Amino acid sequence: MKAQLNVVTLGVSSLEASYDFYATGLAWQPKLYVLDEVAFFQVGHGLLLSLFRADHLAAEAGGSASADLAQLFTLGHNVGSPDEVDHILNVAATAGGSIVAEGTHMSWGGYSGYFADPDGFRWEVCHNPGLSVDAEGNVTIREIG
Amino acid sequence: MKAQLNVVTLGVSSLEASYDFYATGLAWQPKLYVLDEVAFFQVGHGLLLSLFRADHLAAEAGGSASADLAQLFTLGHNVGSPDEVDHILNVAATAGGSIVAEGTHMSWGGYSGYFADPDGFRWEVCHNPGLSVDAEGNVTIREIG
Repeated sequence: MKAQLNVVTLGVSSLEASYDFYATGLAWQPKLYVLDEVAFFQVGHGLLLSLFRADHLAAEAGGSASADLAQLFTLGHNVGSPDEVDHILNVAATAGGSIVAEGTHMSWGGYSGYFADPDGFRWEVCHNPGLSVDAEGNVTIREIG
Repeated sequence: MKAQLNVVTLGVSSLEASYDFYATGLAWQPKLYVLDEVAFFQVGHGLLLSLFRADHLAAEAGGSASADLAQLFTLGHNVGSPDEVDHILNVAATAGGSIVAEGTHMSWGGYSGYFADPDGFRWEVCHNPGLSVDAEGNVTIREIG
């Protein structure tokens, strides 16, 4: 598995309140904002910060590892195909991690699964055909579902 | 505040076990490994993943926001000077965040403080004279304390 982090996803209790903080308070420009569902901000070369409803994140990431749902978050590792997603999940399991959600076709059009590291930190391994990064590191993300 | 994420820090219960998972299991090359304290891996253009003892992280980041200490993590935003750290903390507070640890000179030689977003997710605003990023995005990190 390549040492590569593409997305940090924060599971938020109120997307509207979080969006207001980052987009209005800090004046960050969103890349994509899907009302009551998810918002993306570019925070580096090829790097996204995602605000995602905590209940939806918990449902797809194999449940909340924490009693405090609002502290749920995931680290995203993007790959080029569904087969690569399954391969990386197996690599992580062999390395001593545990698969907490098998690779699956997502309602939004991609394919992803999750593994947990020794402390339970969740990595989403994801194939997202709607996401691309140009040579300057600029991310384009669009809805494909 | 610029939309910029430089470091993701995971508060880990056993640094040795976590290090073994990432460095041995996943075969990631560490940038710096300080035994029983912290390890850094480069996971993108100018981007670090840091494994840090959870008890030390909680102590410096204004306590654990979660009942489950192992789920503590922080998002790092690097700036050029201690004054900028203090300025950004105030920007975040004005935006509706809360300062959970005021800017302070750290034992390792830098200056940092923490704010929390509306869900309590912690951002470390940090001036680290030991960290540099070249034009290709390669990170160099060295001990300066």
